[in-house]
Amino acid sequence: MKAPIDFYFDFSSPYGYLASTKIDALAAKHGRSVTWRPMLLGVAFKATGGAPLPSIPLKGEYAKRDFLRSARFYGIPYKQPDPFPVSTVAACRAFYSLSQTDDRAKLARRLFTAYFVEGINIGESPNVLKIAGALGLEPDIESQAVKDGTRAEVEAALAKGVFGSPYIIVDGEPFWGFDRFEQIDRWLREPF
Amino acid sequence: MKAPIDFYFDFSSPYGYLASTKIDALAAKHGRSVTWRPMLLGVAFKATGGAPLPSIPLKGEYAKRDFLRSARFYGIPYKQPDPFPVSTVAACRAFYSLSQTDDRAKLARRLFTAYFVEGINIGESPNVLKIAGALGLEPDIESQAVKDGTRAEVEAALAKGVFGSPYIIVDGEPFWGFDRFEQIDRWLREPF
Repeated sequence: MKAPIDFYFDFSSPYGYLASTKIDALAAKHGRSVTWRPMLLGVAFKATGGAPLPSIPLKGEYAKRDFLRSARFYGIPYKQPDPFPVSTVAACRAFYSLSQTDDRAKLARRLFTAYFVEGINIGESPNVLKIAGALGLEPDIESQAVKDGTRAEVEAALAKGVFGSPYIIVDGEPFWGFDRFEQIDRWLREPF
Repeated sequence: MKAPIDFYFDFSSPYGYLASTKIDALAAKHGRSVTWRPMLLGVAFKATGGAPLPSIPLKGEYAKRDFLRSARFYGIPYKQPDPFPVSTVAACRAFYSLSQTDDRAKLARRLFTAYFVEGINIGESPNVLKIAGALGLEPDIESQAVKDGTRAEVEAALAKGVFGSPYIIVDGEPFWGFDRFEQIDRWLREPF
């Protein structure tokens, strides 16, 4: 059994969302599973001096156009959310409070769809809890243990060098961006 | 006759170099020509708050790995230059001092190869002049007219929203990055 591939993302990241719709099939094609690992881009930005795309002159305007165009190019449903970006701390905590891998991935997919297709503000805790509840899940976003555990996951991601979203690690090889999926596909067949 | 596509780049940009090896063939496939337009990333960074990739924590280390891996993926010769990045003011001036489009593109290709394959420091004016001379070209990098003309080109690029390298504009539609070539290919067939 080959090792799972690590899929790091921020719940508020458009390219993270686009990647989330394709990552499982890409991995499965090569007999791999995926470990979903939400992180907080804001924390990474503190390390790299980065900023949310919409806030950057010139690049921000381009990015908004590129989100939509990339979604059309790949045939992925996408509606630019507003507000954007939002805090994804509650979503992250809800995710990591669940113990089952399958439940985590199920919640993550649903949160992405809620935000990037249905326009539900997943930056608001009640919305996160409602979405989880509709899936029959009962995440905990308030306990100190969950808060600490989430912080530890985010710090572990940073320690792995994760500075953007999506960020995929295959057998130690890092790939940043949905636009590296072709390279990941070849790498999973054979490192080059 | 369809309009040429605009190819903006910085001579010190790895992804600009990778794009330069494929852009003419991509355009020709769709009956288009390419207008090569070197710019100065440093000037764009002043507008966006950006910085050269190698200077950014985490992202810089990743970028160096990605330059090499992307070159291998596409089968493009690449040797990480040192020093990197370098000032490309002299290269830009030499380019814009030439009046013929063909001479410009010929010099640009040769400068990219010199820097990214042969390890010649094109940040040094004498090297730029020597490379041009070997092609039978006699660029002027000292006259005030050329300096002013180059500055005007760089400012015009910024006014068009060019914040990165490579940056390609097809009939008004902007594409940033070598990793958007597939989207450009489809757009040239039919806007989507």
